[in-house]
Amino acid sequence: MINPDLDEIARHLEGLEETIIARLIDRAQFRRNLPAYQPGKSGFKGEPALSLFSLRLKYQEEMDACFGRFEVPEERPFNRDLPEARRTVKLPDSCLKIANYNRVNLTDKILNSYNDLVPKICQTGDDGQYGSSVEHDVYAIQAISRRLHCGALYVGETKYLGDPSSFKKAIASEDTETLNNLLTRREVEKRILERVEKKAGILQAAARADTRITIEPDVVRGYYARHIIPLTKKGEILYLLNRTV
Amino acid sequence: MINPDLDEIARHLEGLEETIIARLIDRAQFRRNLPAYQPGKSGFKGEPALSLFSLRLKYQEEMDACFGRFEVPEERPFNRDLPEARRTVKLPDSCLKIANYNRVNLTDKILNSYNDLVPKICQTGDDGQYGSSVEHDVYAIQAISRRLHCGALYVGETKYLGDPSSFKKAIASEDTETLNNLLTRREVEKRILERVEKKAGILQAAARADTRITIEPDVVRGYYARHIIPLTKKGEILYLLNRTV
Repeated sequence: MINPDLDEIARHLEGLEETIIARLIDRAQFRRNLPAYQPGKSGFKGEPALSLFSLRLKYQEEMDACFGRFEVPEERPFNRDLPEARRTVKLPDSCLKIANYNRVNLTDKILNSYNDLVPKICQTGDDGQYGSSVEHDVYAIQAISRRLHCGALYVGETKYLGDPSSFKKAIASEDTETLNNLLTRREVEKRILERVEKKAGILQAAARADTRITIEPDVVRGYYARHIIPLTKKGEILYLLNRTV
Repeated sequence: MINPDLDEIARHLEGLEETIIARLIDRAQFRRNLPAYQPGKSGFKGEPALSLFSLRLKYQEEMDACFGRFEVPEERPFNRDLPEARRTVKLPDSCLKIANYNRVNLTDKILNSYNDLVPKICQTGDDGQYGSSVEHDVYAIQAISRRLHCGALYVGETKYLGDPSSFKKAIASEDTETLNNLLTRREVEKRILERVEKKAGILQAAARADTRITIEPDVVRGYYARHIIPLTKKGEILYLLNRTV
């Protein structure tokens, strides 16, 4: 299990940063490829309505659902109406106190934030590699989603346990501003931002400019600052408001 | 297209190294998890015979086939009898002279080599995270396969074009030893080995020991030396023996 221990959770979230950054760099190897995101333009037989991106995400999640991915608390799906798991996933005991993990599902907001991010990491234009582009998009947003929901659930629970009386009061009055203040630790956020920017540089230090396209480390920092950190706190608040006593 | 230009192809193959190494590091975050590889032990409803790993690979490739992955020359499948592509993949003109890309399919050998590699990068034991383990296995072998078949096909063709008369003679007599000698460039191989070892170190330079499990850079070097480079040359020979005049 992930214990309700802030240091342990922080370490776990830190370990997911490399995966997110690596996935973004993978996607950046391809151009923006706008037609892959246009509904009805997938050219996929039997699927006239969706974009190639939406189709890839749907098919990936249908497969993942069969394998039991969404039994895991921090793996929240982007799609609804997915098939049942076809295997029993052995889950560790959970410290979480919530009846339905999907009460904390920020995938719509992740998708919007990611759509804003793609033009900042990909070169403009069209290289025709739509299949590879959307494949890497899906891996990137799954990595972002795992990090974000993991933080929302486990950090939410752990901070609650650190000061239950203050949290209980704010939860009872649904006072999201106070909850946000109770959850915010500016110095931790600053450290995360500095770290991900540094990591984005280090992870690309071995790449030769003529073999691999790089992304700007401050774009990763900005994405964490504007989206991952605020959405994680939004998720923590959602968790707390839905926490079972 | 990938032009028959050795420098350009070498740069392309070099750019794929980060992806392979990153995928291996991702897999190393989980333990060996032997039950995930035992046939009949998947616990997957309706699939009594295969291991969870084989199932994940099969389902992934069935999805990928629908999206047209295996229309691309260097994307060779591990499974047979996959569904037809449901979309038309816009392929660039190809310099390759071969009637059926699957004449150069080394996936069985990749699978064997990868099974030998896993114990060298993963900690022994069982953390129960079978789903994540096989997910990352599949991404890792797909990245390895792409690199290897890309080398086999395009390097094979390009070296042929550099000395057609010597190659024609060796091909006519199916003299694989001479072909191997014609294809071997020790100094290039040495440079690749040094580079992947260095990259494996750099890519993990940002990881704190208590947040992320690392792999030994010389294991990556050894895998390239014992498997990726020799199998690429084996693939180049297969390509040449099946080359259409």
